[in-house]
Amino acid sequence: MDNFRFYVPTDIRFGKDRLTTELTDVLNVYGKNVLLVYGGGSIKRNGLYDQVIGLLGQNKNKVVELSGVEPNPRIETVCHGVALCREHDVDVILAVGGGSTIDCAKVVAAGFYSEEDPWTVIAGRKGFQGDALPIVTILTLAATGSEMNAGAVITNLATNQKLGVGGPAMMPKVSFLDPTTTFTVPAYQTAAGSADILSHLFESYFNVTEGTNVQDFVSEGLMRAVIKNCPIALVTPDDYDARANLMWSSSLALNGLTRNGKHGVWSCHAMEHELSAFYDITHGIGLAILTPRWMNYVLSEQTVAKFAQFAHNVWGIVEKDPMLAAKKGIQATYDFFKACDIPMTLLAVGIDEEKFEEMAKQAVAHSTIKTDAFVPLTESDVEAIYRDCLTESSFV
Amino acid sequence: MDNFRFYVPTDIRFGKDRLTTELTDVLNVYGKNVLLVYGGGSIKRNGLYDQVIGLLGQNKNKVVELSGVEPNPRIETVCHGVALCREHDVDVILAVGGGSTIDCAKVVAAGFYSEEDPWTVIAGRKGFQGDALPIVTILTLAATGSEMNAGAVITNLATNQKLGVGGPAMMPKVSFLDPTTTFTVPAYQTAAGSADILSHLFESYFNVTEGTNVQDFVSEGLMRAVIKNCPIALVTPDDYDARANLMWSSSLALNGLTRNGKHGVWSCHAMEHELSAFYDITHGIGLAILTPRWMNYVLSEQTVAKFAQFAHNVWGIVEKDPMLAAKKGIQATYDFFKACDIPMTLLAVGIDEEKFEEMAKQAVAHSTIKTDAFVPLTESDVEAIYRDCLTESSFV
Repeated sequence: MDNFRFYVPTDIRFGKDRLTTELTDVLNVYGKNVLLVYGGGSIKRNGLYDQVIGLLGQNKNKVVELSGVEPNPRIETVCHGVALCREHDVDVILAVGGGSTIDCAKVVAAGFYSEEDPWTVIAGRKGFQGDALPIVTILTLAATGSEMNAGAVITNLATNQKLGVGGPAMMPKVSFLDPTTTFTVPAYQTAAGSADILSHLFESYFNVTEGTNVQDFVSEGLMRAVIKNCPIALVTPDDYDARANLMWSSSLALNGLTRNGKHGVWSCHAMEHELSAFYDITHGIGLAILTPRWMNYVLSEQTVAKFAQFAHNVWGIVEKDPMLAAKKGIQATYDFFKACDIPMTLLAVGIDEEKFEEMAKQAVAHSTIKTDAFVPLTESDVEAIYRDCLTESSFV
Repeated sequence: MDNFRFYVPTDIRFGKDRLTTELTDVLNVYGKNVLLVYGGGSIKRNGLYDQVIGLLGQNKNKVVELSGVEPNPRIETVCHGVALCREHDVDVILAVGGGSTIDCAKVVAAGFYSEEDPWTVIAGRKGFQGDALPIVTILTLAATGSEMNAGAVITNLATNQKLGVGGPAMMPKVSFLDPTTTFTVPAYQTAAGSADILSHLFESYFNVTEGTNVQDFVSEGLMRAVIKNCPIALVTPDDYDARANLMWSSSLALNGLTRNGKHGVWSCHAMEHELSAFYDITHGIGLAILTPRWMNYVLSEQTVAKFAQFAHNVWGIVEKDPMLAAKKGIQATYDFFKACDIPMTLLAVGIDEEKFEEMAKQAVAHSTIKTDAFVPLTESDVEAIYRDCLTESSFV
């Protein structure tokens, strides 16, 4: 196990019926001028927007709105948010939405105090050490874990770049996690969010660092929680416990708990970021498509033990031959996503081989997967994995 | 899943070789006057005391010592610590030791600002809402989880009471978790600490709240990490990864991660606290002795499903009959503790039936196990469980 620092001071308020009694007290700690950040309007349809606006009105907050944050939030929206914060002397940012909305809010918060252009902040480095406006979130989608970590991913379509940035000040101060706010999440987004959670777990689980049983076994537990509850939420969208388990998994999958003490870089996220940057597809869908093909591509005598462990501990596969067990585990992963009605080929989401070479180059250029991944990947490896995603697969 | 709040702002610095570069920077945030709290002198034998004193000397700290904190820390020691803090204008408390030392430091920290007698603070209520001196810890024993939570347990031998208290201000600001500091922990204490970690996990796992897959599956993972690594640490005390996994398990087992979202009170801790209060035995040993007998006592048609899940997911027991699976899981738990050389009867730790009735009364009086436990326990139930602990057991 490597040395690590675990410092996650986000105050999680988990459960239903909390906003009425807690939201304004939380905001009042920071001030009265609120930037309300949200996405495409689902919170207007499900009543959450009206509830929040009502509470802020009673509390005599001055509210400025940054709406229409994109599923892959764009730098232009961030810049607009920074300008609004400066113009209206914003004291605190309230992000109501999923990971995209929260990510956007984080970079707005950091951009407020930075004299640099926000894209410079993002493109310059992963570690942002500056100050940021305080962020409070109301999560409406179980997926990215942004509600309980310090990272954000922003897309620049002008440069075809989708890059991550993070820093201590960007960690939300308080996050409200109310499973009922996800009852209206459509099946497709529920499945994509679950795939995102699983991918966060897979990426750290398949790792070269030795002696990390705590992280690995906790990760297996979280995977099982998602695998059990996602199908329930798809069939019964208002099943409270299913939504609660998905929501809490999303936070724990990417708050450091399963990644701390390990080194190395993620593979599927690096490859998927290019799909989203070039084609603007849903992040979780891209991850679901890539993951089983990547698993199969990197499966070898060197990696088989971990894949066999995965097959047994996560999927309950009892099979003596490690290689066969590993393949069955990969097949189970693929079949799970397929059963969640995720389109499991790139062609099905409108991506053909035209830009594979360019995206593969970018995936390697924007990350260190060529040297630091679980199994290092060159441009041609990435291209081969993209190619494996064109049509349906079978692994056993 | 119940509503819960998860707010654990302790800054964990995990790994080796961190003190030299980080300790004084951490302390300097709060001031120069340090109360150094430690136990029976093991840190003098293993060199940690000299290292810390050296660093504090170079940093020109004014150090006052509260040494000799008991394994079950006593109220007299707490009162002495409070007096030292007031006399020497202490700015920050540095606890170097295991859970007892850290617990003592917490109540000293809270007592400093309280006008009440420290025992009144403890006996009065579980929730302490007042202020406390900042606490920094250097953990030397994987066991109680006190390094990453807000609770403390203090013993009053004059009244035969061992009671818990907790509050937000009592949470350590920073905890250094260096697995190498536990290389010199004797086998008996390593086993007792592991039993304590497992007990924290068991107590929340066997619970009536429904829909808590995340908590339960994460808990199973942590149990497996302890079960795998404790025997390694017993055979090879300086196995870094084994010690690292035990240490990180100890923190995660009792920082809320596996308990949040559940209601109900713990059973074995309530029963064990009386053993320690009356006989001053090692807490983890008492828990190891009680736990399998308690499991067997509460096993029924109502509880069998959870015990069968435990047997399968934690011990890998494959058995179709749920009741037999459950019993095999309980037997595996008992056998594990026995294999760790824990004396598995009360007689073996010097406790006979003389005070069973009185201790059973106290266990029920000091807790709500009669109404709120996984399976409610009356005085006669507790007495029966104590009695089952007199001699060796077999469950299958």
